[in-house]
Parts: sequence; structure tokens; C-alpha cells
Amino acid sequence: MAAAAPPPPPSAAPEPSMAPPETTPIGHPIFTRIRLATPSDVPFIHKLIHQMAVFERLTHLFSATESSLSSNLFLSPPFHSFTIFLLELSSSPIPPLLSPSPSFTPIEKTFNFDIPLNDPESDAFSIYYGNQQVIIGGFVFFFPNYSTFLGKPGFYVEDLFVRECYRRKGFGKMLLSAVAKQAVKMGYGRVEWVVLDWNVNAITFYEQMGATVLPEWRICRLTGDALQAYQNANV
Amino acid sequence: MAAAAPPPPPSAAPEPSMAPPETTPIGHPIFTRIRLATPSDVPFIHKLIHQMAVFERLTHLFSATESSLSSNLFLSPPFHSFTIFLLELSSSPIPPLLSPSPSFTPIEKTFNFDIPLNDPESDAFSIYYGNQQVIIGGFVFFFPNYSTFLGKPGFYVEDLFVRECYRRKGFGKMLLSAVAKQAVKMGYGRVEWVVLDWNVNAITFYEQMGATVLPEWRICRLTGDALQAYQNANV
Repeated sequence: MAAAAPPPPPSAAPEPSMAPPETTPIGHPIFTRIRLATPSDVPFIHKLIHQMAVFERLTHLFSATESSLSSNLFLSPPFHSFTIFLLELSSSPIPPLLSPSPSFTPIEKTFNFDIPLNDPESDAFSIYYGNQQVIIGGFVFFFPNYSTFLGKPGFYVEDLFVRECYRRKGFGKMLLSAVAKQAVKMGYGRVEWVVLDWNVNAITFYEQMGATVLPEWRICRLTGDALQAYQNANV
Repeated sequence: MAAAAPPPPPSAAPEPSMAPPETTPIGHPIFTRIRLATPSDVPFIHKLIHQMAVFERLTHLFSATESSLSSNLFLSPPFHSFTIFLLELSSSPIPPLLSPSPSFTPIEKTFNFDIPLNDPESDAFSIYYGNQQVIIGGFVFFFPNYSTFLGKPGFYVEDLFVRECYRRKGFGKMLLSAVAKQAVKMGYGRVEWVVLDWNVNAITFYEQMGATVLPEWRICRLTGDALQAYQNANV
């Protein structure tokens, strides 16, 4: 786990006039933290899920409300059921959590970019820790599944989403590896998720990280009127 | 829900000598019950999972032990995490459970077959309620999943298995519809599972029951050494 790099002490910082730009690029640091979501994050979670539905052109399937999310999330301890990690970003070191969960130590990492990241929606995704603004950049939503062949649980990743202005920077990898790290910590056997078969870039990315794409399995879904009807199939 | 049909009162039973076989076939009744599995059922569950691995020719993936199952099943109330329904069969009405779960009322149904069902493994799958022998014929293993688009949970069916001598009788349908019934009862939005794309008979069966087979999604799996390695991808 990478700790957030503290700002360099004054003595180590070159005087601006002494710093040739071509040899000591200062860049634009971004301090990031992955932490467990809490009930007060539901408005952000709802907006992130909606953005994901827009991105996937699946808004016709989107019916989640803040109320529906609130009523069936955060009912179990973290990792025992539906669990959400949030990605926070800031241009300054992020203050420690006032009430950290005993279940999870936040993962912090500092990035350094050549150009600043421009976030046109920063107001809608801001949290303030005291006076300090921190932006919610993405999330991963996961829960335990189970392999009866292995005789042990794993994690199923339902959603992995990074807002558009923060993509292709390694943040998605950071979120997914946080889930993998938690799985290993708990002695779980697998992390699984699904991908669309035409999403070649995603498949290549997953295979490069060591994942296997299973070619033969298909998802079956019983929902709506068919679900209502089938509950009485045994009468 | 079908209650187990009680035996007909003596006055209603025709005298054997008065019963022309072609108009009043007595047949071979099978009394069935779906109930929640408990920790004492683990030896049966382990044998059923192993038979499933043999059937699917996936014994090379099978490493579950009774101990591994015991250590991570039955840790949460039924339906909140990994949950197992067992199918019990008997040639006589099955006695009520001495300690029924408040979470689930067993589902009972009586079948009538033209010929008796021959179970070559009945000894290995027998439970005795007092003096009465009841056979474990199959199981369904499921747990909650979540649709962030719907903003509500569903059930994912990891395994549905009926022992060979009891197949093609409607018992699999009985187990799966019990899961659908529980999903509806809890206000859940979906029941999902996976199928092999070459298993045309299964796909036809699922489509006839009203399920949709999603053609484009593929399962990705990170496990073993790749999982161990990826946990540190964000360092």
C-alpha cells in the first residue's frame, strides 16, 4: 500500500528561480484515497451509477433512486454483503477520516501528472473535510459470491466506474486491485466480474492483468412478469 | 404452495378387489419437501457438489471439503448470504421439522409416478426422522446479488443439482421456483444464473420458463497466482 507522499520539506524544494523546468518538472500532484462508502455517500453513489448507465447506453434499465439504494445498502458489515469503495481525489493531501472503519484501512496513492486534470463537474462531486475540498472520482461495487467447487467465497464486482475526466490514469486499476487485495486478505479464492464480448479494449486490459475470460458461460436472467409467474411453477 | 397430500381416509380407499387397474391407477407416490439446509447437512452437501463436479467433468476444479464448507457456510441468517435449499423425498408423508426456521416455511408437493424410482445410492443420502427414512435428492445453492441499475438485490443461483435417478421429473423446476418465490417474497428484482452455451437443452428449458439468456456478457475471473499478484497492482 502506498502512503500519501507528504509535501517535501522546504529545504528540499528548489527555489523557483533555480529550477530549470526541463530537469525538475514539478507537475500536478493528485492525492487519492480509496475508502469505504457510508450511508451519507448515497447521493454521490446514485449520480455515479446514473452516469454509468448513460455511458453504457442502458438508461432504459435504470430505475435506482437514492431511496432504493439507502433502503438496501449498508445493512451488513463491510465485505459481508454489498460493499462500495469510493475513489477520492484532491490536489492537496487528504485529511484522515474522523471515523475510520475498523474493517478497512484506506488505500492512498499520489499521482503526478504533466497537466492538471480538468473536472467540469467538481461541484457536484465534492466533499469537504473541514475546509478542504475532495472530489469523488469513481467507485467499485462488489459483494461476496461463492464457489462450491473451491468450497470458499470470492468477490463479485458488479460495477467499476471512473468518471470520464479521470479515465486512462490508472484509477480503475487502483480500485480493482483494492478489491483483489481485500479478497486475498480474507482468504477468498476469486474475484469475478462480467464484460461485454465486443468490448475488445476491456478484454485486452483484463487479460493483461492476469484475468481469464470464460468463453462458454452465458448469464440467464429471470425478472419482471416471468419471475412473478415462475414462483408458482411448483404448485 | 402445495401441501403434502394426506393419505386418503380408509373409507375413500377402494377395496383392492374392486379397483380395476385401468381406471384407478394407484401409482407410486413420492412425497417431497424443500427445506433450508443446516450445518448438520454438510456431509450431504459435500457429496452432492462432488457428484455435480463429476457430471460436469470438472473434478479437476473440485477442492471443497466438508471442513471448508462448514467454515464459511451458515454464518449469516438464511437469504442474507449463502443459502441452500435441500430436496427431500420419501415414499411416505415426511414428518414436520422439529426445529423449523422462522425464515422459511418448507414447500411440500406430492408426485405420483407410474413406476417406482430406483435409487442405487439411497443409503448414502438418507436422513432418519425417528424411524422414517427420507432421501436427499438434490439442492440449490444461492445468495444475494445486486443490480445497481434497479437499485435492489436479486438472487444468484450458483448451483442447481438433482441426483441422476431423480432427473426429468420436475424436481429441478421445483427447486428453482422455490428460489423465485423467495425472491418475490423479499421484493427482489431478479434471479440469475449461468449456463454453458453448448447446453442447448438447458437453454431451451430456461427460455421456456421465461428466462432471458444474455448473449453478449462474458465472465472474467481473477484467481490463483494472478489474484495474488494483482492485489499489489496499485502500489
